[in-house]
Amino acid sequence: MELKRIAVIGSGALGTYYGARLAAAGHDVHFLMRRDYHAVKSGGLHITSPEGDLTLEHPKIYKTSAEIGPVDWVICALKSTSIDEGQKLLAPCVAENTRILVLMNGLGLEERFAGWFDAQRIFGGMAFTCINRGNPGHTHHLAYGPITIGHFQDNKAELAKAIELWSQSKVSVFESSCLLQSRWEKLGWNIPFSGLAVAAGGITTDRIMEDEGLNSAAHRLMGEVLASGNADLEHHSQRARIDSDILVDLFFKSTSTMGPYRPSTMIDFVEGKAMEIEAIFGEPLRRAQTLGVPVPQLTLLTTLLRALNHGR
Amino acid sequence: MELKRIAVIGSGALGTYYGARLAAAGHDVHFLMRRDYHAVKSGGLHITSPEGDLTLEHPKIYKTSAEIGPVDWVICALKSTSIDEGQKLLAPCVAENTRILVLMNGLGLEERFAGWFDAQRIFGGMAFTCINRGNPGHTHHLAYGPITIGHFQDNKAELAKAIELWSQSKVSVFESSCLLQSRWEKLGWNIPFSGLAVAAGGITTDRIMEDEGLNSAAHRLMGEVLASGNADLEHHSQRARIDSDILVDLFFKSTSTMGPYRPSTMIDFVEGKAMEIEAIFGEPLRRAQTLGVPVPQLTLLTTLLRALNHGR
Repeated sequence: MELKRIAVIGSGALGTYYGARLAAAGHDVHFLMRRDYHAVKSGGLHITSPEGDLTLEHPKIYKTSAEIGPVDWVICALKSTSIDEGQKLLAPCVAENTRILVLMNGLGLEERFAGWFDAQRIFGGMAFTCINRGNPGHTHHLAYGPITIGHFQDNKAELAKAIELWSQSKVSVFESSCLLQSRWEKLGWNIPFSGLAVAAGGITTDRIMEDEGLNSAAHRLMGEVLASGNADLEHHSQRARIDSDILVDLFFKSTSTMGPYRPSTMIDFVEGKAMEIEAIFGEPLRRAQTLGVPVPQLTLLTTLLRALNHGR
Repeated sequence: MELKRIAVIGSGALGTYYGARLAAAGHDVHFLMRRDYHAVKSGGLHITSPEGDLTLEHPKIYKTSAEIGPVDWVICALKSTSIDEGQKLLAPCVAENTRILVLMNGLGLEERFAGWFDAQRIFGGMAFTCINRGNPGHTHHLAYGPITIGHFQDNKAELAKAIELWSQSKVSVFESSCLLQSRWEKLGWNIPFSGLAVAAGGITTDRIMEDEGLNSAAHRLMGEVLASGNADLEHHSQRARIDSDILVDLFFKSTSTMGPYRPSTMIDFVEGKAMEIEAIFGEPLRRAQTLGVPVPQLTLLTTLLRALNHGR
């Protein structure tokens, strides 16, 4: 395995966890760190995980991207609410052969990076995981953990390079042959379960599963999202289609095993933080409306979430 | 004007205000009082109002309906969440010629009283008003104030008796020639504006008017409710129909003049009290679903409100 020079931009829960896994695999990982800079400088970076705890005593951390400079790979794990800062934060790390993995939630983010840095170097990553930040310098990986990765142009040779990056790490990686399909599939879970968890007042996903009305609402929302995804795939001349029946069944079965799961958007909500509404809900809604897909419940849900996010 | 013996069952904001207005008009008004009994016993009942402040130094108040006994009129102003107590609370006051005005929010309440006490004595009242309770013994009438009254069987001679009751009072009364239509018309305002005010986190109606998404959501919800109302009127073989275009225009214009109005359900929500979800949202939704009217947004809104009301 070729060891790579990597910049992690956005060292929140996901960035620290996956960056630490890459560092443990031998890569040369550099973290752009804001909130936890001083805590990690003095005390190190601590990961608890069912895959094995992990401590980086002296990780390479920086306050600016310029100090990191050009790298082979950027792992961008910014919160999508900071997407407008993406170009400025990544630019000092991006050289001619740099590749960028957008490890963020939502739709349309790779498009932004492609516009700034050339489409052929952009990848999207979807983390199916439960990772929270604890005290400064501490990250708690609670369960699950695979990443699905796709190339922005669905180039197979390029995708192989992204998969190779993780080959010696403890992170399971799945290949997506159609990034747009994978993004919509993830939204198929995220929109109903994260959205209802917030709009119902900040509840865990088991309550959505158990409550007849919320369970039905989740089904209807999921149907709207997956129908929108297939319309969007057709609009983008993609041959891939989401098999809604199988996916709905899979999502509800897997959610029923999760227990009192707190989606990240719900955690943001109850902690009074800005929620990632536009990337996860707003952009899918805009596309559905443009394509004429009937999405009455997604429309109302997104409207309510925007109102709940007001002023954050 | 014939002076009547009146029992006010449910002496909250509405019950104390309208009961005091009837007392000031000379009627013999008896209040069933729970929360404020001791405060009113020692300090009287105080109303502030743009129609003129009003104090009843020694109103006739009781802890049980049995102490009140039979009356000519019962004004039932219970919260609809207490509807199951209605029969027990009213029974001691209901004699052969007693009439009952159901001055409550929501759909299907008169049906309950008709089942308990005979349909021909039941009336429904809709208060278009803003009245809050202040400290114990104090009620604040802030604006508006007319009541629309209909007879449960739409009997004109009976309705005239109900109108007559208020003739010497400061309360404006409108006659409804079709109670079911009037109930649905009130829901046409109440469901979108109260519902969104709660589901968007406890906001005032001016925010719904100003926010493009919420304003559109209110329009769509209102359309669903009024269509359901017309289907319900048809189902009940009523000739009356709601003129949706005129009513939507009227509701939005009048709401735009209300300023930062707090619907009673929103006040319940922010104060952590039980909200009147089933009468205002659940019963209209059940009827719409039974009649096959498509109400996707009412369905989701009601589901969310039930979840937000959970455990209250």
